[in-house]
Amino acid sequence: MRIARFSTLDDQSEVAFGLVDIDAEGQRFVSRIVGHPLLGPIKLAGDPMKLEDVRLLSPILPSKVVCIGKNYADHVAEMKDITGESTEEPVVFLKPSTAVTGPGDPVFHPAISERVDYEGELAIVIGRLCREVPPERAKDVIFGYTCANDVTARDLQKKDKQWTRGKGFDSFCPLGPWIETGLSLEEAADLRVTTTVDGEVRQDGRTSDFIHGIPELISYVSSFMTLVPGDVILTGTPAGVGPVQVGQQMTVSIERIGELTNRVVTRD
Amino acid sequence: MRIARFSTLDDQSEVAFGLVDIDAEGQRFVSRIVGHPLLGPIKLAGDPMKLEDVRLLSPILPSKVVCIGKNYADHVAEMKDITGESTEEPVVFLKPSTAVTGPGDPVFHPAISERVDYEGELAIVIGRLCREVPPERAKDVIFGYTCANDVTARDLQKKDKQWTRGKGFDSFCPLGPWIETGLSLEEAADLRVTTTVDGEVRQDGRTSDFIHGIPELISYVSSFMTLVPGDVILTGTPAGVGPVQVGQQMTVSIERIGELTNRVVTRD
Repeated sequence: MRIARFSTLDDQSEVAFGLVDIDAEGQRFVSRIVGHPLLGPIKLAGDPMKLEDVRLLSPILPSKVVCIGKNYADHVAEMKDITGESTEEPVVFLKPSTAVTGPGDPVFHPAISERVDYEGELAIVIGRLCREVPPERAKDVIFGYTCANDVTARDLQKKDKQWTRGKGFDSFCPLGPWIETGLSLEEAADLRVTTTVDGEVRQDGRTSDFIHGIPELISYVSSFMTLVPGDVILTGTPAGVGPVQVGQQMTVSIERIGELTNRVVTRD
Repeated sequence: MRIARFSTLDDQSEVAFGLVDIDAEGQRFVSRIVGHPLLGPIKLAGDPMKLEDVRLLSPILPSKVVCIGKNYADHVAEMKDITGESTEEPVVFLKPSTAVTGPGDPVFHPAISERVDYEGELAIVIGRLCREVPPERAKDVIFGYTCANDVTARDLQKKDKQWTRGKGFDSFCPLGPWIETGLSLEEAADLRVTTTVDGEVRQDGRTSDFIHGIPELISYVSSFMTLVPGDVILTGTPAGVGPVQVGQQMTVSIERIGELTNRVVTRD
């Protein structure tokens, strides 16, 4: 299943979860879900709407956005001046929940930064309250997967040492376009992740190149913090990170999930 | 006013906010608040209960716990091997919301850490949705103040470089005992902050020794992340940080606010 969150274009104050599907003509549509999809069996209501007639929002509003640094060997190599070279244990940091934004939403370039980078990533959406999850039980706590862009003010990340500011600006965590719940762990462990800027490929990796696999990441993170339904774990970015300029469009594409596009803008 | 959150001892599933006051005999009692104290005028209901007849909880469940490092010169000196010496801009990091715990609750000593430290701190509770708050408007977004203990697995903090794990274990952010809403900015800027371990004074500082004052901290943090009502900013800890052992009791006391006591335990 593909679970989205959306508002209708004529009344943006009404927000609902929806099931995204394709009809016989290949047209994508969305059916409203009654209540919260993390709370049990999915029940649909109302007439399906064409996908272009709704505004997709971040598919989840996580209480925690847990991020993994340095999880692709080729990215570790390109970043060693900022992050060092050790990859024995995952590097974990947090983005504030206020950084989350949806597909199509603007990413605001802070005036204070001279270099804002895209970082395309696979995001795990947690489905169950859990703590100290052994790797072999990780699959039981996964609700699904979505695309994420770990937008980073690289100069501030480097200057501050702690990454909270460089990674934490409002709009620095686009998520979407929906949560794909139908992938097995094995499938999720071998997905192509690409990032384009104005259509030009800048990152092109595979989750099979993870240094720390999905079960290990969930086990590690949950060894020191309880995860709650809707929490998101960003799994790290492949090589090829680089700057985006105001006006440019970033697209994170993950095979079998979808595309997450956001344009960089200045705040008026 | 002093705003607490509590459950009654006979039915811990019922949680409410309460107003803490002292009666003519000097006895502390708590009156139940209808609804959420951040949502408008306080309305009380029911009979006041003696404070010892309720269980105090963390007075707020923040969506974000924003922490400031290195905000007392004497603490910067004692920590320079871990954090460096520059204090030009505040060091900002996040604790996960799952680290929050209440007064009297156990702090769990992770088996993986060889050194868990107390860090007594003044916490600011944000009362309004805000962004890019100028220092002179900071007082308008403050709901009140409480005591915090920025419990830290010092060895993991040092090892990981990013502080998320060392600072982020469940129970590593005791808050309480209540939110004091009656302090002016000037009053909050000159409070004695002490931490004792089993009654012995280990930290003894004053908020007048802040490197970055309360308005500056709110302005800085809100320059890169929107703050929402109930968010908490921990303002940094004075000199004297040190380890606590399983079985020991930590008490953070802040003049005109109250005392926050937690015992260190192992998880069974």
